[in-house]
Amino acid sequence: MKGIDFYIEKLKELDYRNMYNNDFILTWEKTRDELEAVFTVADTLRYMREQNISTRIFDSGLGISLFRDNSTRTRFSFASACNLLGLEVQDLEEGKSQIAHGETVRETANMISFMADVVGIRDDMYIGKGNKYIRNFSKYVRQGHEDGILEQIPTLVNLQCDIDHPTQTMADLLHLIHHFNGIDNLKGKKIAMTWAYSPSYGKPLSVPQGIIGLMTRMGMDVVLAHPKGYEIMSDIEGIASNNAKESGGTFTKTNSMEEAFKDADIVYPKSWAPYVAMEKRTELYGQGDMKGIDELEKQLLAQNKEHIDWQCTEELMNTTKNGKALYMHCLPADITDISCKSGEVAGSVFNRYRSPLYKQASYKPYIIASMILLSKIKDPAELFDKLSKNPTKRKWD
Amino acid sequence: MKGIDFYIEKLKELDYRNMYNNDFILTWEKTRDELEAVFTVADTLRYMREQNISTRIFDSGLGISLFRDNSTRTRFSFASACNLLGLEVQDLEEGKSQIAHGETVRETANMISFMADVVGIRDDMYIGKGNKYIRNFSKYVRQGHEDGILEQIPTLVNLQCDIDHPTQTMADLLHLIHHFNGIDNLKGKKIAMTWAYSPSYGKPLSVPQGIIGLMTRMGMDVVLAHPKGYEIMSDIEGIASNNAKESGGTFTKTNSMEEAFKDADIVYPKSWAPYVAMEKRTELYGQGDMKGIDELEKQLLAQNKEHIDWQCTEELMNTTKNGKALYMHCLPADITDISCKSGEVAGSVFNRYRSPLYKQASYKPYIIASMILLSKIKDPAELFDKLSKNPTKRKWD
Amino acid sequence: MKGIDFYIEKLKELDYRNMYNNDFILTWEKTRDELEAVFTVADTLRYMREQNISTRIFDSGLGISLFRDNSTRTRFSFASACNLLGLEVQDLEEGKSQIAHGETVRETANMISFMADVVGIRDDMYIGKGNKYIRNFSKYVRQGHEDGILEQIPTLVNLQCDIDHPTQTMADLLHLIHHFNGIDNLKGKKIAMTWAYSPSYGKPLSVPQGIIGLMTRMGMDVVLAHPKGYEIMSDIEGIASNNAKESGGTFTKTNSMEEAFKDADIVYPKSWAPYVAMEKRTELYGQGDMKGIDELEKQLLAQNKEHIDWQCTEELMNTTKNGKALYMHCLPADITDISCKSGEVAGSVFNRYRSPLYKQASYKPYIIASMILLSKIKDPAELFDKLSKNPTKRKWD
Repeated sequence: MKGIDFYIEKLKELDYRNMYNNDFILTWEKTRDELEAVFTVADTLRYMREQNISTRIFDSGLGISLFRDNSTRTRFSFASACNLLGLEVQDLEEGKSQIAHGETVRETANMISFMADVVGIRDDMYIGKGNKYIRNFSKYVRQGHEDGILEQIPTLVNLQCDIDHPTQTMADLLHLIHHFNGIDNLKGKKIAMTWAYSPSYGKPLSVPQGIIGLMTRMGMDVVLAHPKGYEIMSDIEGIASNNAKESGGTFTKTNSMEEAFKDADIVYPKSWAPYVAMEKRTELYGQGDMKGIDELEKQLLAQNKEHIDWQCTEELMNTTKNGKALYMHCLPADITDISCKSGEVAGSVFNRYRSPLYKQASYKPYIIASMILLSKIKDPAELFDKLSKNPTKRKWD
Repeated sequence: MKGIDFYIEKLKELDYRNMYNNDFILTWEKTRDELEAVFTVADTLRYMREQNISTRIFDSGLGISLFRDNSTRTRFSFASACNLLGLEVQDLEEGKSQIAHGETVRETANMISFMADVVGIRDDMYIGKGNKYIRNFSKYVRQGHEDGILEQIPTLVNLQCDIDHPTQTMADLLHLIHHFNGIDNLKGKKIAMTWAYSPSYGKPLSVPQGIIGLMTRMGMDVVLAHPKGYEIMSDIEGIASNNAKESGGTFTKTNSMEEAFKDADIVYPKSWAPYVAMEKRTELYGQGDMKGIDELEKQLLAQNKEHIDWQCTEELMNTTKNGKALYMHCLPADITDISCKSGEVAGSVFNRYRSPLYKQASYKPYIIASMILLSKIKDPAELFDKLSKNPTKRKWD
Repeated sequence: MKGIDFYIEKLKELDYRNMYNNDFILTWEKTRDELEAVFTVADTLRYMREQNISTRIFDSGLGISLFRDNSTRTRFSFASACNLLGLEVQDLEEGKSQIAHGETVRETANMISFMADVVGIRDDMYIGKGNKYIRNFSKYVRQGHEDGILEQIPTLVNLQCDIDHPTQTMADLLHLIHHFNGIDNLKGKKIAMTWAYSPSYGKPLSVPQGIIGLMTRMGMDVVLAHPKGYEIMSDIEGIASNNAKESGGTFTKTNSMEEAFKDADIVYPKSWAPYVAMEKRTELYGQGDMKGIDELEKQLLAQNKEHIDWQCTEELMNTTKNGKALYMHCLPADITDISCKSGEVAGSVFNRYRSPLYKQASYKPYIIASMILLSKIKDPAELFDKLSKNPTKRKWD
């Protein structure tokens, strides 16, 4: 097992000084070194927790979660991350259909941030809104700090927006790093990010977009597969292409699930709504046209039905590399014969991968804590050195 | 007043090593020594708080509360217990009518437990479900720990299930121990656990079942009284009979409230629903038959009305030992002329016992904290010795 | 910048010994020295936070918030204050329309206070109820402490009642003290507390009442302005008159917004409902007459409309002292063309004062923390001396 010195040495090799006092909003805004710093700090925090060493860097302070819809998993991951560092969580639940504008955002941002060291925002429902909201929030709290309203600048962590889902995809990637024994071993591995059938509607685009935007950084062969009509934001495809070029990997698209699965090392079959439909929905919400939304939902469910054959079956899994690709999902999945009649994945496939899937999810609290820590602590290597040399026990024993 | 040494010596006499890393689900699964360990640790924690000595054994960590229905009292007791030990509470509110199955439980259990040191579950509404849910939850988090998903095993504390309500009955018993000046003085005392009239419907069985299952351990003369048709789970009556035999007490049943009250040292008059009705209701919920549930409710309220004379009146209280039996209730009570027109207890009786009733309730946070501590700390005697010799103040003064 | 010694010396000059173990319910129940102690401690806490010095005086403990209606701002201020001192917040949300009586209050008060060091109550909706509720709550927890039910006496902090809003007005006043460079400079300053038009209904009276009850303590010229029919509680006007006499200031009333603004140093234009209407509403709620409440609402909105000219415009602002009065508001404001078509204040006026308005709001967490601290710590001067000489960092750096 790796000791604390391993992690400290690793950190010293990386240049991540720009993360200090900065937000984490999109993975493609970060350098490769910065991404590796997130993984290294996450691993260190997990290691120290296993060793019963406290990693509280705050004696008091608040972590604010601001969700536009309910989310048990993300909420618990964020709460766990905050608690690990010594922050108490306060939840702000804004109405689902309420899209805040300009000055209202400025007021909310200041009013809830008096003692906030971090604000985690999940706003994934409206195309063109969520990411903007996070950036505005960040701008306004920085201004609040300059104006002497806030004693500290709260770090913004994107807990899922309309564009990216960095805490999910970074946890996914850390899972891959451990699964394949090192980040360098990911080079040349084929990952299939494919659409899959779901009996439900309107799942966000942030996961497929985030996955192709991140995995192409690692020199992987990234394939995006979906039926015609299920296009994602084209900007992100452009980013993925550029990433692939720079990292020595590839980014390809196909309308065949079979093609994507063929010889894949990793498969990530997951439903999402077409980008144009999400845009349309955002428009309808803006107009308060609930009848239009109902009709759109019916249309989309019918459209989904046309592609009911897009399921991750045993047959498809058999066509992957040695029939043993790593199956991934951000959870919860639509599992055939378990959570629905027909869904994204066959029950037998899902059950076989349950343990690695939960392990995948278990990285998220550490990833979030790492993002916070790197924004708050100038020299994490020094921090870990001190914390481990004169450790406080997390739990009395 | 007893000092810390008293408690430490007491602990050293008891064998409770099996509580370490274990759950607290049913009182009759615990040995007499283990029950006494819970009381001793609870008293110690209360003593130390009175002395302004911090009993934080966690520097960080989460306590998860998972309630199937709203409960202010239990929620605050659990939150108080967690806070006393240094854990931050996160509430997970599942829908009332949603009965989770197999793999869903496994997923939830793992997803919310990444940093959970304790999970308190209250699931008392469906016969045959609540206790099973707790046990499944426990099984799945242990598996999650083995699989490297969870860094720690969260302790499960039963905050009320369809079978038992151990945090309530243990608090009740600790109240009795203090009231009668010692656990040994309970031998031979008569306690009447009796049904009482309520204008409301569907109160759980866990309190009467828990009381007869626990008090029979203490060599008490336990009487269970209810109108015909208000039977509880027969298994628990069997357990109570066996307990009584072993402890040198008695367990008897009657359909007369008068007989139960006669010369009683303690009375516990409280409404509950018939076991068969609760079984029926669970079935109807399973079928989503809301009309059937409405009809069942009407039936049960009418059935209750037939026994409106089952009230804890001054006349009945006069028939108890010297007219001065200790009146108990788990709160909130249906109080005649105070919270309803006719209810479980006369206003004058209830008011006379208000202070002891609140004292009774005040043991619950300490009982819960004790259950957690005994699962987390291998040698509590050593812990208390160290905490008291080099005390951290809970509150600066 | 002022150092810690400045604050410690200031505290030593003040007599606030009666605040120890006491509640904060109405500002006019406190002496001038006691008010100054609150400001001094608030400033000290803010200073220490800026210096990254931890002010946790609790190692564990709960702060309970009890709100009768949703309030993001007050909730976050209270949570921030508790967190700053080391208390974990637990929220109790009682139903809006549920008015608790006598023994029910006693039971709730005890049941949620087992580990409560402070209880913050906001109950502003029903005339004649909110303040009484807070006082009853206080009485019952003190009794609970005497009876051995509660290990500690929770301090009651009035987070807004039907009579006063002390945490708001004290934050407002601290803002003025800083704005005008010292409490003594407030003498002779003219402050206009005036009604303003709002398209919404039923805003509480506690702010205007609290402002005239507090600012008249400072030797200011306090003017209360509103249209006929928008009278506040006459008792409070009496208190304001007496205060003015004692402090060497004035308290005058007018039905002209223009008169109030003329040469004012500070303006506080804000909507509220007529006292008699609020009394009527309380009555209707008591009778469960929802139809009557709907009718009353329509009436009141029509009555508001008659005074749509009561708006804080640029023209009116120009008539204030040098055209530069400090504009204040407790937020959120009804801002013309921003949050509504016509409201309390012109968009251009509001926008010009955004930064000072947010600064004004930012004092509230410190004011609340100060009220708690003064009730819990016998010698705050000694506390601050010790905390600053041997500081614990709030955040690792």
